[in-house]
Amino acid sequence: MSLVIVGSLAFDTIETPKERRERIVGGSGTYCALAASFFTKPRVVGVIGRDFPKRTLAFLRSRDIDLKGVEVRPGKTFHWEGRYGEDPNQRTTVRTDLNVFADFKPRLPPSYRSADILYLANIDPDLHGSVLAQAKKTRLVAMDTIRYWIETKPDAVVRELGRVDVYFANDEEVKLLAGDSNLVRAGKKLLKYGPSLVVAKKGEHGALVFGRDFVFGVLARPCDEVVDPTGAGDSFAGGFLGHLDRVPRPTGRELRRAAVYGSIIASFVIEDFGVDRFLTLCPEEIDARYREFRKLVSF
Amino acid sequence: MSLVIVGSLAFDTIETPKERRERIVGGSGTYCALAASFFTKPRVVGVIGRDFPKRTLAFLRSRDIDLKGVEVRPGKTFHWEGRYGEDPNQRTTVRTDLNVFADFKPRLPPSYRSADILYLANIDPDLHGSVLAQAKKTRLVAMDTIRYWIETKPDAVVRELGRVDVYFANDEEVKLLAGDSNLVRAGKKLLKYGPSLVVAKKGEHGALVFGRDFVFGVLARPCDEVVDPTGAGDSFAGGFLGHLDRVPRPTGRELRRAAVYGSIIASFVIEDFGVDRFLTLCPEEIDARYREFRKLVSF
Repeated sequence: MSLVIVGSLAFDTIETPKERRERIVGGSGTYCALAASFFTKPRVVGVIGRDFPKRTLAFLRSRDIDLKGVEVRPGKTFHWEGRYGEDPNQRTTVRTDLNVFADFKPRLPPSYRSADILYLANIDPDLHGSVLAQAKKTRLVAMDTIRYWIETKPDAVVRELGRVDVYFANDEEVKLLAGDSNLVRAGKKLLKYGPSLVVAKKGEHGALVFGRDFVFGVLARPCDEVVDPTGAGDSFAGGFLGHLDRVPRPTGRELRRAAVYGSIIASFVIEDFGVDRFLTLCPEEIDARYREFRKLVSF
Repeated sequence: MSLVIVGSLAFDTIETPKERRERIVGGSGTYCALAASFFTKPRVVGVIGRDFPKRTLAFLRSRDIDLKGVEVRPGKTFHWEGRYGEDPNQRTTVRTDLNVFADFKPRLPPSYRSADILYLANIDPDLHGSVLAQAKKTRLVAMDTIRYWIETKPDAVVRELGRVDVYFANDEEVKLLAGDSNLVRAGKKLLKYGPSLVVAKKGEHGALVFGRDFVFGVLARPCDEVVDPTGAGDSFAGGFLGHLDRVPRPTGRELRRAAVYGSIIASFVIEDFGVDRFLTLCPEEIDARYREFRKLVSF
């Protein structure tokens, strides 16, 4: 069992209607790896500048996350600044400083190359090929995208859909890429491009998982205080893939459970800024929400 | 077991991105009663003009709907015109002609007065008192509102919440009435005004049911072709209350099932214009979607 995550480790500046936090640790790879670490031992491929905090690296290692694939380069770490409105689903990117991430060429250390699950967390779709070429015997390949790649390289994104098993995206991105305003039709359309699973994340409304012969719906756990929604989607993917990595086979039932674990782990991360909630999260809390989740949806 | 529905019987002119339909039969009472008729024998209180189609009344009667409470008055039937965007959750009211509905004074025929369940489908909150005064031994009172009453008579709506058991509203209306942009906090706040259940309907995202010591989430059945969303909310309430009317007691489990039946019956009505889908709907189809629903959410 092994999960390799290719993504960003970053600084985020976050503004919510209540509070502003400057240069806190974030990044798709960071969120995803921390979420997955509650289910398996993830390995990360990414790049950071010399300014990335040592204590964050120490915390990631303390969660049994393998950082051999994280390059430290001269220069500054990727920095993203965003603002949320009263509706946490509404987010505006204020600025993006790619910094050392601009020349990121993902390199898998030899020990990563036999990964069972490979996750490409919204990196440039034109980098996918070189990552896939480095991996052997991959059991499952998953990818995420952001709106930016769909708008600037739609053909590359569609091409890459033909090479992955699972595609994660926000509902708006699924509709945009499929060119269809109905999410159900859009999700099914993207299946035709290749993946066997399309996971459309809907923020506070949960997610719909489209398979070739089924649809599964997972709620977001009702939350009365969203402190910072950043990283919820990456954490969803981390919980989802982390669970799949610990089960023998991705049966229909395990795919459903994976989506529930994804939703649950995302429900924690939004309770505090950045990755702070992971500092205190314990497996018993996850188990409790899993049990509670049955009550939330069973009838 | 008996369910009395006080609401409108109307003509609707509907414009969707694909099609326009002039003066088709609609109205909150019509949708709700038709939906409920698959679970119980509803009784309707409303008012129509002489222009209301005889064949619709005959169809309602053929579904075992009691129309003794429907007054026929000289003049025209209530007419509403609305337009939907590409996103069926976005609707604009183009015009409203209240016509005979303007002077509607709901009168319960003697045989209706011992109703077990009384549903006030978004009528003027200042009319509630006279309706409640006519009913005896009511086991459960439910109400719905539209944005218009929350904006023009918020105090009256809040006052009426103190006299009902179940409050149905759209998520936007729940947030507006509670003055809180977080739906979960808003739903819980409205519980404090009196109802033991707040049902926040979220269109394609399903509904959240807030009780004093539980939250239940129900999905909308994924639909790849929403023809006409009109009446989905009223049909949800009809299925919900229709199911409650046929069970001995509204236990937690039956409330959850009621929400699922509400969601399922709404999933049918949006498949065709107006109430047309009810013309062919049969109980076996409802049962099939109920079974399918378990697969949609169980893990």
